[in-house]
Amino acid sequence: MENKILVETSARHVHVTEEALAVLFGEGATLTNKKDLSQPGQFAGEERVTIFCPKSEIARVISLVPVRKANQVEISLSDARALGIEAPVRESGDIAGSAGCKIVGPKGEVTITEGVIAAKRHIHMTPADAEAFGVKDKDIVSVKIDSNGRSLVFGDTVVRVSEKFALAMHIDTDESNAACAFGKCYGELIK
Amino acid sequence: MENKILVETSARHVHVTEEALAVLFGEGATLTNKKDLSQPGQFAGEERVTIFCPKSEIARVISLVPVRKANQVEISLSDARALGIEAPVRESGDIAGSAGCKIVGPKGEVTITEGVIAAKRHIHMTPADAEAFGVKDKDIVSVKIDSNGRSLVFGDTVVRVSEKFALAMHIDTDESNAACAFGKCYGELIK
Repeated sequence: MENKILVETSARHVHVTEEALAVLFGEGATLTNKKDLSQPGQFAGEERVTIFCPKSEIARVISLVPVRKANQVEISLSDARALGIEAPVRESGDIAGSAGCKIVGPKGEVTITEGVIAAKRHIHMTPADAEAFGVKDKDIVSVKIDSNGRSLVFGDTVVRVSEKFALAMHIDTDESNAACAFGKCYGELIK
Repeated sequence: MENKILVETSARHVHVTEEALAVLFGEGATLTNKKDLSQPGQFAGEERVTIFCPKSEIARVISLVPVRKANQVEISLSDARALGIEAPVRESGDIAGSAGCKIVGPKGEVTITEGVIAAKRHIHMTPADAEAFGVKDKDIVSVKIDSNGRSLVFGDTVVRVSEKFALAMHIDTDESNAACAFGKCYGELIK
């Protein structure tokens, strides 16, 4: 399993601020842990929101914990087309000038003027992982996925290194479908 | 531009039989040419249909001309998830045991018990192209796409050779999104 990395598919989701959390789910509300994510301290909440854009909406979108400093909505480019918006492919947190939308929760709604992106594919890893792979934070690498009928090599994959991370590659649902990267899927890092 | 191939994105569409055409659009109806496809003699019709599955439906699906011997619905795996069905990744025409759906047109509806697939990525080429590339019908090759932010190499790409074809690679919308293969996009064939 040398050079092998767990490949996880991120379904559409939102990261909200503490303020937005209170508006969407009620003052003092916290989200119920439905599923731990691979990254330590992060989980998907049981509670869902709806994303509204002028052309269409998508219901039952997952909210992730913990809260963030800025609201961010991560969707696939298939979602963006269905919603009638242009979502740029960006790294998480890089939301300047991206698309806006309305986020509606059970207790209220929040309109954001930017924050809707398609996530740039990336690998989370610890400094020890980075040393083992011979890469460093912000490196661009490729990852080879062998699947039944849709094998491919993803280029333009950003390496993100932090003590807080656990080793995992994150791709969105379009990318996952393009690679048939379903179930317990592993990729091979290629420098 | 040696080894370069035009990469076209196939949006969801249906191929219908002569019988289904009469049911969906009316006895003796023909489809209006909205857009010629790259493959000679094929075009997308102006008229649309709706695909119904038990969980959901997708409206405004394109119908392609000419008619075929069997009804076939080509969707992305993102579509399949939204519709609540499992669409196998198959070559065109290989529909045995695939998913079913109801196709509804302006004049009537047709229920198919199989025929819903996600198309296996493929390259159409003439025998002269095949000779130039050094490949033959049914070969499995890779195609490298350089894009702004989502470059990748598609493996598992089927070569299809016929005098009736024009040189073009066909990918679905998930694959196109995964590669940002938008606009006039070219790929490089890798054996």
